This record gives sequence, structure tokens and C-alpha cells, in this order.
Amino acid sequence: MRERTPDDRAALVVFSGDLDRVMAAFVIATGAAAAGLETSMFFTFWGLSVLKKRGARAAGKGFKQRMFALMTPGSSTSLGTSKLNFFGMGAVMLRSMMKEQGISSLEELMAMARDLGVKTTACTMSMDAMGIGKEELFDGLDLGGVAAFMADASRARVSLFI
Amino acid sequence: MRERTPDDRAALVVFSGDLDRVMAAFVIATGAAAAGLETSMFFTFWGLSVLKKRGARAAGKGFKQRMFALMTPGSSTSLGTSKLNFFGMGAVMLRSMMKEQGISSLEELMAMARDLGVKTTACTMSMDAMGIGKEELFDGLDLGGVAAFMADASRARVSLFI
Amino acid sequence: MRERTPDDRAALVVFSGDLDRVMAAFVIATGAAAAGLETSMFFTFWGLSVLKKRGARAAGKGFKQRMFALMTPGSSTSLGTSKLNFFGMGAVMLRSMMKEQGISSLEELMAMARDLGVKTTACTMSMDAMGIGKEELFDGLDLGGVAAFMADASRARVSLFI
Repeated sequence: MRERTPDDRAALVVFSGDLDRVMAAFVIATGAAAAGLETSMFFTFWGLSVLKKRGARAAGKGFKQRMFALMTPGSSTSLGTSKLNFFGMGAVMLRSMMKEQGISSLEELMAMARDLGVKTTACTMSMDAMGIGKEELFDGLDLGGVAAFMADASRARVSLFI
Repeated sequence: MRERTPDDRAALVVFSGDLDRVMAAFVIATGAAAAGLETSMFFTFWGLSVLKKRGARAAGKGFKQRMFALMTPGSSTSLGTSKLNFFGMGAVMLRSMMKEQGISSLEELMAMARDLGVKTTACTMSMDAMGIGKEELFDGLDLGGVAAFMADASRARVSLFI
Repeated sequence: MRERTPDDRAALVVFSGDLDRVMAAFVIATGAAAAGLETSMFFTFWGLSVLKKRGARAAGKGFKQRMFALMTPGSSTSLGTSKLNFFGMGAVMLRSMMKEQGISSLEELMAMARDLGVKTTACTMSMDAMGIGKEELFDGLDLGGVAAFMADASRARVSLFI
């Protein structure tokens, strides 16, 4: 933290696991990367659901961790909306409305972020708390704690908590 | 993005359409503008409800868009609270508590923001997704996408996602 | 706001009173302070619950303010989670899962923030609106409005709304 002016960087915390907020996070991240900012996303808490591989399951979870896993989305495709979710209907409707308008799906935005070189970090403290193993998450992610986020954010032009 | 130091700017994303969060957004925006920062607010997703003219209705919406319009607030005056809403009672109570204390209402804060020259942008991608036409929104708004937000945010001292 | 480059500062708005979000706020704040940033937290709206002394009660509240106090957490120990709360079970489960993993509790993080010199400000406008007196809040807090937050945030490397 010796440099005095920010780098061309953007740093996002994705705390939420709601489809609408996660979509916003990826729209902003890909927008930032497209504008030439070195962009990093730090997924913590409910946001970790986004990084889960479909159908993956960690061995040796405790009871509470298994309960938690049952009650949280198993991958990006099963995220609900923050409002008007109605047991998943909101997400189905939102995805369908976006598709009709030719707007990229969450999964397309995620692929775009990867292609644009957006750095993706999973929060190790949240993984520990929820008993999520790295074998449950996509390959090629960084793992890190709050220090990793602060290192990026303190040099960034834009930092957002989503 | 050639300049290395931030301008005297603040850039806010208003994603939420909850009365309490939207109030916070306008208190911060007017505070930033009063402190001499060139301030812009980018309204996206649920936040678009804030910009709707009372009683306006877009012609030619699809079925899902009409359903969505029915289930989301028609203007700033019908926003609910993020907690303790109880079908609108929370918002009535909050507004009444604030009024008793001589705190500006949301609508007064919005007028103040306008007077202080706060730039207001409606997110075109959200408008498309929800089938909201610009004739439904206040006059004099800017329309733009994530690139418009990033252009402001990447030069700002303060950027917040609300 | 004459200086052109940001100071080594971080400024957080804690708007939420949800256990999970407040935990994230304190993890980030202590992380920022540990990384050498002068860190300030501005507690507003639901976030004020975090600063309440257990069992304190303000005299002379109006009816609505008393109702509001009854329906919001009385201190950090009674915060609920933003999702899966189930009348407090979510918070009990989350706290227990974190404890098993040796993760600091919210109260430990709060003490750590104090020890690291994190500046804590209670939003006076929210206190007025909700009828919360300063005798209900921890001692040694700063009291201030949005101008106090903007003064810190406009000089900060990182500013987040949580």
C-alpha cells in the first residue's frame, strides 16, 4: 500500500446469493473488465453458492453443515431472487424475461467474466464456516481471506459490496 | 481512464427498491453533492421503481412484464421497507416517524438531489428486461448501461452499491 | 477535499442489522485496519442495533418508537440472519457453526475493531427517526450525520455500503 494513486482496478465483494444481485455483480464486473480495469470478485457467505459445481458434494460434513447445504442453492442455476421469489418462480420468470430480450444469462455472464480475465476468489473463512470443500467449487478459483480482498480493494478505483 | 487520481466525484448504484435503502441512497447522494462532489446515481433493477411517474403505464407490455409491473411499486410513494414491512405498514410508520422528527421525506430528498445537480441515470438493460418504457419514467433522466456507470465510478472518490 | 490522492483509509456504512452482513462488515473493517488503513464504520438505520447496550432503554419514547424498538434487536447478541432466519434459529446455527471452526464471534470481532482503533460513528438522523437515545448505545462512540461519513469516505481508498 505504498503507492498513492489507485491502479486501474475494480474489486467486488459478492456477499449475496440472490440471482438478481449476482447478475448485477457480473454485469458490473464484465463492464469493468471491458472498460480496461483489472477486475476481481471475492465471493463470500451466500455468494459462495454461485461457485458451486452442479451435483458436487463434500464428504464428511457435520450435521449443521449438511442442513445448511440442503437449504442453500446447489449451484448458480438454482439461485432465487431477493424479492418476489415465490419458491423459485421469480427466478424462472426473471430468467425468461431476460432471455426474451436477448440479455445474457448468469451462466453466460460468468463465462464472459472468465474470458475477460476477471479474478475469482472464494472466501476461505466462509468455506470453513459452512463446511464447503474446494472440491465442491469450480476449478481454477483462487482461495483467500479478507487480506486477499483488501490487497486488491485498497489499490482499486472502484470497490463495491454486493 | 487516463487520469491517475480520482476526481471529486461520487457514484452510486441504486439496485434496491426498498424505502429504507433508497432513503439512505438519497441522503448519501445529497450529502455528497453538498460536500462539493459531482454525484451520479445509477438506478437499476428494483431501484427503477423510484423513477416511475405515478400512474404512468407502458403500452404493449407482454404478460410477464405486466405481472412484474403489478407486483412492483408503481412509484416512490409506494415503496415498502426491507424489513418489518407488513404489507406496507412499515413504510407508513417509518415515514410518519421521520416526519415527526422533521426529517425530509423521500420525495423532498429527490427534489433536493435534482436541485443540487445530482445526475440520475436509468439502467437500460433493466428497463428492457422488465419492459419499462421511458415514458413511464420521470422526464429529464439519462438512460445508459453499465458502461455509463463505470465511466463515472472509475473516476470517483466514492462508489457505493445500495 | 483539496488533496487529490486518497489517504490510507477505509470507510464503511453499516446499514444492515443482519448478523451475516454485520459479521462481514467487521471482518472487512478489522482486515482493513490490520492492513494499515485508518478505518471508520458509520452505523445507520438497522445497523444501529449493533451498537445498542444490552438491556438499555430510552426514557420518554413515543408509541411508534416503542413499537419499533420492540420489533428490532435489542443488541448485537439478538441479531437475526438475512436468510434462513426461522425466528432466530439461523443465527443460533450460524454462530454455532462458526464457533466450531474457531472463527471469532461478532462480539469478539467488535472488541478487535475497538482494539485496532476502528472509528465507530452512530448516525444521528437514524437515532432521531427511531427515537434511540445515546444512553442506549455503547459509550465512546462518535455521533454524526452524513457529512461525517462523506468527510471520511471522500478521502478513502475503499468505501463500502453493507
